[in-house]
Amino acid sequence: MDFNSWLTNKINSIEEYLNNIIKEKSNPQGLIYEAMNYSLLSGGKRLRPVLLLAAYELFNNNLECVMPFACSMEMIHTYSLIHDDLPAMDNDDYRRGRLSNHKKYGEAIAILAGDGLLNKAFETGLGAVLSYDDNKKALKALNVIAKSSGVNGMIGGQVVDMYVHNKIKSLEDLKYMYSLKTGAIIKSSIIAGAILGGADEVQLKSLEIYAGKIGLAFQIEDDILDVTSTLEKLGKKTGSDIANDKITYLSFVSIEEAQRQVVQLTKEATEAMSIFGDKAKYLIELADYLTKRDH
Amino acid sequence: MDFNSWLTNKINSIEEYLNNIIKEKSNPQGLIYEAMNYSLLSGGKRLRPVLLLAAYELFNNNLECVMPFACSMEMIHTYSLIHDDLPAMDNDDYRRGRLSNHKKYGEAIAILAGDGLLNKAFETGLGAVLSYDDNKKALKALNVIAKSSGVNGMIGGQVVDMYVHNKIKSLEDLKYMYSLKTGAIIKSSIIAGAILGGADEVQLKSLEIYAGKIGLAFQIEDDILDVTSTLEKLGKKTGSDIANDKITYLSFVSIEEAQRQVVQLTKEATEAMSIFGDKAKYLIELADYLTKRDH
Repeated sequence: MDFNSWLTNKINSIEEYLNNIIKEKSNPQGLIYEAMNYSLLSGGKRLRPVLLLAAYELFNNNLECVMPFACSMEMIHTYSLIHDDLPAMDNDDYRRGRLSNHKKYGEAIAILAGDGLLNKAFETGLGAVLSYDDNKKALKALNVIAKSSGVNGMIGGQVVDMYVHNKIKSLEDLKYMYSLKTGAIIKSSIIAGAILGGADEVQLKSLEIYAGKIGLAFQIEDDILDVTSTLEKLGKKTGSDIANDKITYLSFVSIEEAQRQVVQLTKEATEAMSIFGDKAKYLIELADYLTKRDH
Repeated sequence: MDFNSWLTNKINSIEEYLNNIIKEKSNPQGLIYEAMNYSLLSGGKRLRPVLLLAAYELFNNNLECVMPFACSMEMIHTYSLIHDDLPAMDNDDYRRGRLSNHKKYGEAIAILAGDGLLNKAFETGLGAVLSYDDNKKALKALNVIAKSSGVNGMIGGQVVDMYVHNKIKSLEDLKYMYSLKTGAIIKSSIIAGAILGGADEVQLKSLEIYAGKIGLAFQIEDDILDVTSTLEKLGKKTGSDIANDKITYLSFVSIEEAQRQVVQLTKEATEAMSIFGDKAKYLIELADYLTKRDH
């Protein structure tokens, strides 16, 4: 199967699963289901679940039993976007070309919808772990996910972004922040998928290198797109980093150098996959796809 | 051991565990550890972890291995208070006699500290589940906890409280909201403790009755205290329900009738414990203690 067909196929499976995860109810708290689904089902690249499935497929093709974990990653990612967009945080009115959650439902519901999605991610993951007879791998995978989304991972990165950002004086500091804020759950998606598939330590090590490289490349590309893309393509305001005087990769290197580093990181990520031979072809194409995106 | 010594002993163990759960770090995101601990270590009744330990003690005395679950309940409770206090929600400046989290650290950090505590609750629970050789009971307990804090439990109750509250026309509607908002995690504390201890279905059924009764009694008592207590004792403003035109138990019955129902619920909770004989003495005294509190 060519990469585009493979990717479309994966995204369709993920969308189908996500569509059925939060059933809107007519009970009094129905509004929260609606608000959660509003953000969860608003498209997006589905990068994290796709990565989880791609890493799992190195070892096993029975995708059905890991779909809950893949979709937990998307719920965690979505909740973080809802909370990041809040007025007290980044104060963004748009997300994926639509009103952000709090602009649509108000701040209180947006806070609760985020909380609800984070909680639902663990409900979904735990439900899946419970369904295994031998649950050791599944439990280990969920544990990796939990750590990556916490204060030593994604949330910690958000804190650094908001409160220490103006103290960032070097590319190394910035990379540290990126490794937490976006890198942590990109990496855990890949590692969780690999653990679920039964990866050994050597294989996990290679996947960690791959994950670290594409995570950073992804974030540099984001910084580049904020300058070079359009509202239409990006689904959110462009130029906001400059307007907000935000320190990005481009505060330290030129666009050309940043683009060169994205290419280099992608190459290194690809090299780390050599131990898997042809089985890693979709992961390799994914790395490439991420650097060529326009949104 | 008399009840007061038992309770003090339990609370001390819980405090000790909580004190060591979030180590303040000097890394760039150190502020979030501080903000999480600010709310987590601000006293409080520690009711939910105490209930979990008390239910577990019906079956087993090896408290050490269930302490992570007990403290996860307190982290979930604490995060919900931080988010409830936010300006977009209840807009409360004080909590437990101190500035609320967002008044102390600002809204963004308060949102993230809440997120961090919810995530940490699952990290802690999963870490504990992983440590068991036979993890089926622990996993089932954590699953019960996860469901109770989600949109079909605590978060759902908060949504009803904020958005449907003025449509509450009957005591039944109000009880539904209470059963989610405060009832769900009080019940799951007890049920999780009992599952961890190895309770059978009949025993769980009795504990569910007990939990439902004391959960409602606790909430009615809260409504009574809002009228009869003082800022000093309660650690937060009193009379706020009336000032906010909030529908409470006292919108439907007199204080005297509400007090009578608290006594009746406590009696019924106690009766449900009869199958455990003398082993349930602390749970029975806890029910009584909750109705006699002044904060």
